[in-house]
Amino acid sequence: MELSLYLFSILFNITFMDLNELNDYRKFWSDYTRYQDTLALLHWDSEVMMPEQGRNERSEQIALLSSHVHKMYTSKQFDDFIGEVKLRIPRLDPNSIQSQHLIKEIEVLEKERNRSKKLPVELVEEFSRVTNQAHGVWASAKKNKNFAEFKDALKRIVELSKETAECYGYKEERYNGLLEGYEPDTKAGDLEELFKHLKNSLIPIVQEGKSYPNPFKSSVSAEYQTILNKKLPEILGLSQDVSRLDISLHPFSTSLGSKDKRITTRISEADPLSSIFSVLHETGHALYEYGLGTMTEFPSPISQALSYGIHESQSRLWENQIGRSRAFWNYFYPIMLKDFQIYHYDLPFEDFFKYVNSVQKTKIRVESDQVTYNLHIILRFEIERELISGNLEVEELPSIWNEKMKEFFDLKIDNDAEGVLQDVHWSGGSFGYFPTYTLGNIYSAQLFHGFFSSHNNFWDDLEKRGDFSSLHKWLKINVWHQGKLRSPKELIKEATGANPDSSYLVKYLKSKVQEQD
Amino acid sequence: MELSLYLFSILFNITFMDLNELNDYRKFWSDYTRYQDTLALLHWDSEVMMPEQGRNERSEQIALLSSHVHKMYTSKQFDDFIGEVKLRIPRLDPNSIQSQHLIKEIEVLEKERNRSKKLPVELVEEFSRVTNQAHGVWASAKKNKNFAEFKDALKRIVELSKETAECYGYKEERYNGLLEGYEPDTKAGDLEELFKHLKNSLIPIVQEGKSYPNPFKSSVSAEYQTILNKKLPEILGLSQDVSRLDISLHPFSTSLGSKDKRITTRISEADPLSSIFSVLHETGHALYEYGLGTMTEFPSPISQALSYGIHESQSRLWENQIGRSRAFWNYFYPIMLKDFQIYHYDLPFEDFFKYVNSVQKTKIRVESDQVTYNLHIILRFEIERELISGNLEVEELPSIWNEKMKEFFDLKIDNDAEGVLQDVHWSGGSFGYFPTYTLGNIYSAQLFHGFFSSHNNFWDDLEKRGDFSSLHKWLKINVWHQGKLRSPKELIKEATGANPDSSYLVKYLKSKVQEQD
Repeated sequence: MELSLYLFSILFNITFMDLNELNDYRKFWSDYTRYQDTLALLHWDSEVMMPEQGRNERSEQIALLSSHVHKMYTSKQFDDFIGEVKLRIPRLDPNSIQSQHLIKEIEVLEKERNRSKKLPVELVEEFSRVTNQAHGVWASAKKNKNFAEFKDALKRIVELSKETAECYGYKEERYNGLLEGYEPDTKAGDLEELFKHLKNSLIPIVQEGKSYPNPFKSSVSAEYQTILNKKLPEILGLSQDVSRLDISLHPFSTSLGSKDKRITTRISEADPLSSIFSVLHETGHALYEYGLGTMTEFPSPISQALSYGIHESQSRLWENQIGRSRAFWNYFYPIMLKDFQIYHYDLPFEDFFKYVNSVQKTKIRVESDQVTYNLHIILRFEIERELISGNLEVEELPSIWNEKMKEFFDLKIDNDAEGVLQDVHWSGGSFGYFPTYTLGNIYSAQLFHGFFSSHNNFWDDLEKRGDFSSLHKWLKINVWHQGKLRSPKELIKEATGANPDSSYLVKYLKSKVQEQD
Repeated sequence: MELSLYLFSILFNITFMDLNELNDYRKFWSDYTRYQDTLALLHWDSEVMMPEQGRNERSEQIALLSSHVHKMYTSKQFDDFIGEVKLRIPRLDPNSIQSQHLIKEIEVLEKERNRSKKLPVELVEEFSRVTNQAHGVWASAKKNKNFAEFKDALKRIVELSKETAECYGYKEERYNGLLEGYEPDTKAGDLEELFKHLKNSLIPIVQEGKSYPNPFKSSVSAEYQTILNKKLPEILGLSQDVSRLDISLHPFSTSLGSKDKRITTRISEADPLSSIFSVLHETGHALYEYGLGTMTEFPSPISQALSYGIHESQSRLWENQIGRSRAFWNYFYPIMLKDFQIYHYDLPFEDFFKYVNSVQKTKIRVESDQVTYNLHIILRFEIERELISGNLEVEELPSIWNEKMKEFFDLKIDNDAEGVLQDVHWSGGSFGYFPTYTLGNIYSAQLFHGFFSSHNNFWDDLEKRGDFSSLHKWLKINVWHQGKLRSPKELIKEATGANPDSSYLVKYLKSKVQEQD
């Protein structure tokens, strides 16, 4: 009997390795995550709480901890822990979900660590130095409405970005080397295909779209807005036990732990909807992050955000598909009136709802509505793709920008500040970032369509009871708990039964425009 | 000529070493400080901002960074950097202030690092484990008003504290081994000497002191209190550019960088003075920390708080010498009335001012006034000194406590919750902490006396213009910029021309009681 138990234990160990043996690896990743969360707190605090003169030392605190975190990630010790796990993979039970997760974890880690090791330290430092300086140059050029001031700095950034893409390596075209950092397994050709139909459909919609005036007869105090804003995440399903809302210059969301999500908004007393939509948007990001945190028992490389596009799909879904729906406002409008101390007759529902879905072409991306926004992004994608491929020179940017604004919107750009200089992104070398905004919109429409086709009672549940439970359940299974198990494309296919397709977004936006009539 | 320059440069180097050569050492200490400040942010956020469910992961973040900081402090690398500096000390210009600072820095570091290396890791861990558990035991025993429940836990803590004192080593008596960690170069015998006169003088004062009722006719909203509270640090000279005020369960102050001081208060709508005095107290701590940060150009082991007693002297000076003075309230009372929206005739100044200086004996330390407070502390000091020396057993605590309450206050203790169980300190093993509270009061009275004897216009400047500039200037020279250059005793002697002496406090308290008549 003793012998047979012994033999059994050997067989057992060979076939089904005990995952508790991974202690070193798990502890390492857990520590890494705690440091990352601490770093996120340093950033959050600096945007939301810190007294002004704390800035210099805070930069040093951030630099120090960033470097510590980076060293951990690329360390020999981490190599060794991963190596130990890999040795054990053949002994894993291939039918257990934990094992499948572990195999995927290692795959994800190796892919991302290999990528991060491809850049020479000198290039990273030079990139950081150049973009740090360029930020001030850009801001001054924008203030002076003069692209010429920014030209040389941008040229250097484009050169370094091309060099970066070459280090990473790519298929088909150089832009893909950068895009991969924002949207894994997605190519410029995929985007072109997705954006083609969208662009052709949106140009006429924007021309037809109707704009409605701000229906608020007077401003709403920051105090009243804050009362309402603080309720909103809870209504959407993000508990105050695991989150908080504050004010910052630019709205953002961040994670300081699996049960500590922070979101911010900013308040315009003249336009109270601006803050509500920021809260809807940032709550969407935070719900995704919170959902990811419930995917695995311990911090893991697979229970992290999949891509910029998928992250944005989660914010956009709550901001647009939910936040601009009639059902949401049927539920939320009376709550808003009460907190804002406004009478119904002072803010008729139909005037209000039309304003929520206004379409008005504008020269400025961040001021644009949900339809127009995508054309702004496609314009930027077309330009930056050519820039990185080398088919377009930095000198040509203002003229190509203005031509495209004429083509897309029939708008004439009067100066560079309202044209090519309006966004901060290129001054930071973030080539490949812009398209993920519209990818988020495409994904959000497709995901919501996938959800709704099997949950026809959703609008009813929302309108009558503010009940989002079916949507939470669906997103948890199809998006949040997918973590990094699949590529973005695969996630969309698995969740909706179809490849990524912009026609869902087009259909959604068309229906919003028609609803206005 | 070339040769003579060469010779001169050699001589120059030998005689006056360039302090820039200390880069490694400076960088190490700077990094260490950045990590300490980051750790302080993790703590501050958890008390002031964090959503409830963030607590578990936050504990892990804190544990991880604490351990990192501890490892840095005790590292071989730090030994080496200090060793390099020591080799250069003979080459320093003994007349330069920088050199004198550097020599003192190394002396302070060696003393503190030697002390911290004396405790075996096992003892530190056991101490931490036992006190963590004891906290819950104490809270429950206090709730049940039953010392017997806490007795065994406290016995273990006393044993471990004795062992700790033995590891550190001491002169004269065992208690000194612990006291040194709170108040360097101060012995139990010194305290006994200082406290003797104080005790004998205060017992009759407390019996004579008059208590006045809360003069506020109705409660003051948290909103109004916050408006006033936010002004107060700025009025005392702590700029909003380098500080912020928030709400927490227990008021505290902390430093997140040399230009980032955070203070907190709590608000009682029924008793608005409670919050004002917390802000005065915590601002005093923060002004000291801010002043220390301006002592040296870079983070340094000498530009840190000297001792618990000196730190407390700074908070008490602003809370009592300033905050209970007629001049301060002549200036601040109209501002308070305005922010609280109270009419003069609803809160007559004399009623109000008498309340500010009320004396009423109480069983509870944290509810006691500025006179009574010190007797509470002396009582605790007498008991804990005997406990650590081994002349008193844990079993005897309730009876000795209650006897002393009779002796000091002529008060009868009805149960352990209002007696020996009232304070958290002993459950955390903080023997040696209590006496620094009264040491702070003694120092604050003596320091203020030292300042005032050469600044007779101070009350006038304060009353008429809210002008604290002369006090700031004096404290900067005599306390803040002394850092750790001297022992607490030496600092007091240097600043006031006399050895630490409790008669200044007695005189101050007597004058407050007389003022009431």
